Amino acid sequence: MTTDLITRRAQRLGPNLPTFYDDPVHIVHGEGAHLWDACGRRYIDCYNNVAHVGHCHPHVVEAIARQAATLNTHTRYLHEGILDYADRLTAYFRHDLSQVLFTCTGSEANDVALRMAQAVTGKTGFIATDNTYHGNTTAVAHLSTRRPPIGGWPDHIRRIPAPDSIAPLGGSLAAQPQAFAEGVAKAIAELKAAGHGFAGIMLCPVFANEGLPEVTEGFLAPTVEVVRRAGGLILCDEVQPGFGRIGTAFWGHERLGFAPDVVTLGKPMASGHPVAAVVTRPDIMAAFREAFGYFNTFAGNPVSMAAAAATLDVIEAEALTRHGEIIGAQLLDGMNALTYPQIASLRGAGMFLAMEFSDALRPNGAPVPHSANALCGRIVEGMRTRGVLLGRVGRQQHILKLRPPMPFGAAEARDVLAALGDCLESEQTA
Amino acid sequence: MTTDLITRRAQRLGPNLPTFYDDPVHIVHGEGAHLWDACGRRYIDCYNNVAHVGHCHPHVVEAIARQAATLNTHTRYLHEGILDYADRLTAYFRHDLSQVLFTCTGSEANDVALRMAQAVTGKTGFIATDNTYHGNTTAVAHLSTRRPPIGGWPDHIRRIPAPDSIAPLGGSLAAQPQAFAEGVAKAIAELKAAGHGFAGIMLCPVFANEGLPEVTEGFLAPTVEVVRRAGGLILCDEVQPGFGRIGTAFWGHERLGFAPDVVTLGKPMASGHPVAAVVTRPDIMAAFREAFGYFNTFAGNPVSMAAAAATLDVIEAEALTRHGEIIGAQLLDGMNALTYPQIASLRGAGMFLAMEFSDALRPNGAPVPHSANALCGRIVEGMRTRGVLLGRVGRQQHILKLRPPMPFGAAEARDVLAALGDCLESEQTA
Repeated sequence: MTTDLITRRAQRLGPNLPTFYDDPVHIVHGEGAHLWDACGRRYIDCYNNVAHVGHCHPHVVEAIARQAATLNTHTRYLHEGILDYADRLTAYFRHDLSQVLFTCTGSEANDVALRMAQAVTGKTGFIATDNTYHGNTTAVAHLSTRRPPIGGWPDHIRRIPAPDSIAPLGGSLAAQPQAFAEGVAKAIAELKAAGHGFAGIMLCPVFANEGLPEVTEGFLAPTVEVVRRAGGLILCDEVQPGFGRIGTAFWGHERLGFAPDVVTLGKPMASGHPVAAVVTRPDIMAAFREAFGYFNTFAGNPVSMAAAAATLDVIEAEALTRHGEIIGAQLLDGMNALTYPQIASLRGAGMFLAMEFSDALRPNGAPVPHSANALCGRIVEGMRTRGVLLGRVGRQQHILKLRPPMPFGAAEARDVLAALGDCLESEQTA
Repeated sequence: MTTDLITRRAQRLGPNLPTFYDDPVHIVHGEGAHLWDACGRRYIDCYNNVAHVGHCHPHVVEAIARQAATLNTHTRYLHEGILDYADRLTAYFRHDLSQVLFTCTGSEANDVALRMAQAVTGKTGFIATDNTYHGNTTAVAHLSTRRPPIGGWPDHIRRIPAPDSIAPLGGSLAAQPQAFAEGVAKAIAELKAAGHGFAGIMLCPVFANEGLPEVTEGFLAPTVEVVRRAGGLILCDEVQPGFGRIGTAFWGHERLGFAPDVVTLGKPMASGHPVAAVVTRPDIMAAFREAFGYFNTFAGNPVSMAAAAATLDVIEAEALTRHGEIIGAQLLDGMNALTYPQIASLRGAGMFLAMEFSDALRPNGAPVPHSANALCGRIVEGMRTRGVLLGRVGRQQHILKLRPPMPFGAAEARDVLAALGDCLESEQTA
């Protein structure tokens, strides 16, 4: 059955399609923090932040079904749905981030964010880290692709060294904020010298794709100062950390304590219904609306807004941010108790955690190439056979990423820790 | 109430937001080819091809609700939904167009189509008509924007004269196919001379945004030959004509009788659920998958696929293509019977019709600037007060566009014709 599906995928969807696991999982049902495969086996989902309030939450399903049976049309007619939700959403922001533009995907949101910075500055130069991902449109993929685009690397994008927990920029975790900002300043100077000027920097405030390195409050303060001085905008990609995933703070930028100019939202926003958004200040929205015509047929429609509103209902009613803070802390404590030599670093906030592995050493002390990568791959596969689905990130794909649906509870945390301990234990004897 | 909503929109969503009508309509419910406003007034929808099988079709609503309650996750796990639908969808294509990549919006689909042409040719030069629209991502908007992008017009995009029914290229409708192809050849030569090379041309096969000019079978044959000889790809944007809207043919390219290399789909595909796709040949898909990493979190998920499959169910079960052919012909006949001097041209296929107005003449025979534009604007507003919602296109926004949900029936056609006759009659005495 699984083999049949893999063959059909290759035949109908083409080659090189991203699939998780050597032997991909065939999922048929989801509920809360659990997924079930076609054989009836239950998995704990430690990967999926899209099903933020839990897979198939009945309140969200009911809202989608009710609105889909009532009206689903574009926003060139008036409708309360978009306004009621926009009011609720922007109430979660400070810094005059009071206006919102809806899209269908985080990629579309980031594509708009780039143009907002262009509209405000009149410039085209952008900065992103050298180990990130912000989406899949042509313009946004330029920020993060690992392969040279057809026609060559675009000159108006500069990539700067990403923060790192094991090999921090500037040589120490204390020096890293300033060193990171110096990378930004250098890139700005290059963009200006090349005639592009500086429009803005796009950042995930928890550096999720960079491997969730240890960054604490104030980390970006020197960077923000450099960017502001150069007249650029801070584009904050909250597609992963947003909506209370990281515990104490509802947004990543709130946790780090800085004021972004533009914030983009996506994945968890509407429980898998394709909804994303750009939140910004009125002056920036006006500049964008003046410089670019923009209309998105599906975005902001009544069903999308009902799905997003119902998702927010659940976040609030079930106090999921506080829940994630408590359970995430338990999970991190448990991970800290797993004292195996391959673990180089553990970190995280709320329900977003990372376990970084170190390379093994040769007898002469040199690291074995890709050994942390291979180890991390074995752990991901080993967790799957133990009924836990999770992913990995990092320069060498050597960092385990735990990002479960928020209703993930204490029982799931215990099971995940047991599986993780078991996997790591088997690595000691291997 | 309406005023309140307009104020709230400006405050929360920003300025210059596209809204239909001087006094925007506040829609609260949809069913079949009808929409209802907040005062309980019923409108005939002659605009909306997204609600292709009718607003809130119970079969589609039920499919979305059932799947949303079962599973909604990304395509890195295996699922039958995407494969079953992809099989059904590609069965509607010939020319070895047998593989599909799903996205959430037509814009995303066109953004991918451009990169497919880049991947196959290794070139970056593109051609589109000078009066078109293919979507809202940065890369795709470059094909059709009327405002200079920040940083200036991109040199690798060339705009060629669009076909026209009243002032045909080459001086006559008979000469237009060849004249259009000559525009393409000239643009290809320019792109090659400028060092970009030629990757492809993107076209809507019924030139929907160009005002649905009269194009018949074979119209694009000379263009296709020019493009093929130059080694470029034909990217066929079927977002508007696709899924049987135009009567006899299920796709626009089928009606014109040519073989595209890449076809993009969108709006009507899943009844408003954000689903779109790129259909192409295996060789092109492989080149794209080799040159670009591409993953789309929401695209192809089980709920999206259920919505798309249910939409196709209804198209088939209710024989909507045949229905649209019959009713569309009745509507066109009735429009032909409206013999008013301002009507310059009537045309269409199936349930996609256009009425083009001519400029009034001054006593010296010169056209009055924008008079067809103003007339068309008055007709659109007049139809709205008579309970019919429709839009307009064309270089001067002087062409009425009728594109109702497919269940639009004979009774609706009679009502629309009566309203249209009434509007036009009032113009004679004005």
